[in-house]
Amino acid sequence: MKNLLVAQSGGPTAAINSTLIGIYNAAKSKVDNVYGARYGIKGVFNKDIHNLSKLLNESDLPILAQTPACALGSCRQKLKDPQNYPEQYESLIKIFREYSINYFVYIGGNDSMDTVNKISTYLKQNNINDIIVVGAPKTIDNDLVETDHCPGFGSAAKYIATTIAELERDCSVYSVPAVTLVEIMGRDAGWLTAASALSRLNGSKGPSLIYCCEKAFDTHLFLSDIKKLFEKKDNSILVALSEGIHDNNGRYISETAGQTYLDEFGHKQNAGAAKVLEQIVKKEFGCKTRSIEINLMQRAAAHISSLTDINESIKLGEQAAKCALNEMNGKMSIILRKNNNPYEVEYSSINTSIVANKVKHLPNDMISSSGNDVTNKAIEYLKPLIQGELTVKYKNGIPLHLNLFQE
Amino acid sequence: MKNLLVAQSGGPTAAINSTLIGIYNAAKSKVDNVYGARYGIKGVFNKDIHNLSKLLNESDLPILAQTPACALGSCRQKLKDPQNYPEQYESLIKIFREYSINYFVYIGGNDSMDTVNKISTYLKQNNINDIIVVGAPKTIDNDLVETDHCPGFGSAAKYIATTIAELERDCSVYSVPAVTLVEIMGRDAGWLTAASALSRLNGSKGPSLIYCCEKAFDTHLFLSDIKKLFEKKDNSILVALSEGIHDNNGRYISETAGQTYLDEFGHKQNAGAAKVLEQIVKKEFGCKTRSIEINLMQRAAAHISSLTDINESIKLGEQAAKCALNEMNGKMSIILRKNNNPYEVEYSSINTSIVANKVKHLPNDMISSSGNDVTNKAIEYLKPLIQGELTVKYKNGIPLHLNLFQE
Repeated sequence: MKNLLVAQSGGPTAAINSTLIGIYNAAKSKVDNVYGARYGIKGVFNKDIHNLSKLLNESDLPILAQTPACALGSCRQKLKDPQNYPEQYESLIKIFREYSINYFVYIGGNDSMDTVNKISTYLKQNNINDIIVVGAPKTIDNDLVETDHCPGFGSAAKYIATTIAELERDCSVYSVPAVTLVEIMGRDAGWLTAASALSRLNGSKGPSLIYCCEKAFDTHLFLSDIKKLFEKKDNSILVALSEGIHDNNGRYISETAGQTYLDEFGHKQNAGAAKVLEQIVKKEFGCKTRSIEINLMQRAAAHISSLTDINESIKLGEQAAKCALNEMNGKMSIILRKNNNPYEVEYSSINTSIVANKVKHLPNDMISSSGNDVTNKAIEYLKPLIQGELTVKYKNGIPLHLNLFQE
Repeated sequence: MKNLLVAQSGGPTAAINSTLIGIYNAAKSKVDNVYGARYGIKGVFNKDIHNLSKLLNESDLPILAQTPACALGSCRQKLKDPQNYPEQYESLIKIFREYSINYFVYIGGNDSMDTVNKISTYLKQNNINDIIVVGAPKTIDNDLVETDHCPGFGSAAKYIATTIAELERDCSVYSVPAVTLVEIMGRDAGWLTAASALSRLNGSKGPSLIYCCEKAFDTHLFLSDIKKLFEKKDNSILVALSEGIHDNNGRYISETAGQTYLDEFGHKQNAGAAKVLEQIVKKEFGCKTRSIEINLMQRAAAHISSLTDINESIKLGEQAAKCALNEMNGKMSIILRKNNNPYEVEYSSINTSIVANKVKHLPNDMISSSGNDVTNKAIEYLKPLIQGELTVKYKNGIPLHLNLFQE
């Protein structure tokens, strides 16, 4: 008997279930059983392992594709170094044997690829050749190296572009000067913040200023940028900024209020970057100022997924399953852009050792020289990723979701 | 020459432009010109008045219906008492005469209906019979009296139900105990918070707890509610709460941290209610805790408008225009529910004197006796309002918006 096990890991996205679909579809006729572990690698250790064919009907798959977050649950757990802590790996192999698992596909970001890399390294070093471990990429942050972009990112980018366009309309209704600061996810990479510029694609004003976390943030320059806009009679200023913007010394802007934002027990608390800047702008200009965190909605808004992202996420799942079945131990499926106009991609794979724990930053030539916007190169790169809309099935006025483990 | 003037006022919604469409369509063949004032009543005083036929093509109307916020801009300005300050009204009448305006339709909430009421009272008291002023309702808060519900509310409620369903999926992915506090708009009325319960319509768990601002909020009871859920092994607790929840003495929960949340200049700042409770929950249970403000997105998310809401908003605009053309001075168009299953409504009108400055609260029988949920009666009332989806036109991956005053 040969079985394939799949699990999901890291932060949820709107597309990670589509990758699960791709893996399930590509594997189901090639193995005896496709199993899913609940709560990532933690669930494998806990033998929280379920037969997906029993949980999933063919007719469920389109609903699963429009269900946000991880249908199998997730975890944030890093494995120890296999050289010095082999016990963890031994017990893992024992569980794989118990369930006749020959293939393990782990969907996740750079931490999860570290897990894939460690297990596959252990397998190679111990000459275990009948168990194959591969990775399928996932992250709204778009910060995995080697792959052109990451599944889940396109949908988050589409939500952000749409939401910023809507907020720009909302913020422009009054004639009084106002600043709206919108904080977008991304501690280390500004890809999602850059996607706010896509709100301008149909001629809208979009954000007046965009600050990505790749560039050191200078509060004085920021205030001078706003002052210039007010002088140019731009009265409704929408600012898009990464949660991870930091000063020249690497100190997060969100931490600069650490001494003054106390919780009710007197403990220091980090406000968000936008909240901190809200106070500074209000003090400087005395105008109406508001901060907005797009928060979990940007990764969960499956009702406005990018069709391109969903289709590619399925394909990347299929590609990962194929890598597993072809015994390409330690690989992660990737997407390569062959052409931008018309947009064409192809699928390939790479060693997870190259991907694990690395971060792909927004390159310098995608950030404007003024540091407060993105370049056309960024728009050209981002635009194809948000194209197309999933035809979402609604019931009772809300999108249908699939819950594999309804209690 | 007989002209009709329309203006929009108060906070934006996803449906207020549909009411504008209704007014425009019903009036255009009945008057010489349909004018729009930019930035509400303020724009009338400033003669910021535009001929809508020159700004709007017939083919623009479907795009206008999917454009959030006020296409004509808005303001927050209350008029003075006409008895003691007649000058303001005299200059208004002078402007109406200058533009041959016989009909003025003002779209807005209870403050705007105060404006309609004051102008119409002035007109009656001064025997000016050839100028008619009427109101068309609008507010995501759903707190206007006499009308069964308010245009804009259904779309906000649909966004909230969808978003809470998505967040519930997102928050359930980890196996560790966690509390997510979602703050929903509503300082005085809990209708939108109640709508979070609609996320359960397709069998999802939805919020574990719902606190509307109509009921005094007891922090000890709240902590005990969470404790009970943890004891019942509900590990991913999503709490929906109104921004306006307050204690038994009427003090807003958001103000209870006023002494400890200092801005960088040492000034007291009000955090949101959810932010305040986040600290309290974290301290009490030591678990992963997160607060989310749905913020302006709940009123601006026109990409997921309720078709029922959009259609009704158009009809309420038509009804308001008809009231104006039929010289029903001082009226506001309203919607009455004739039947709930199947859902049937009819349109009527009422004196703005009855509506002005009043707030319709969520009634007691829509809040559960435990105070931490809503009743079936609430669900039955709310459910029809979020039904149907607008077929949104996309271009370049984002919804098309119409900007009447593109600079």
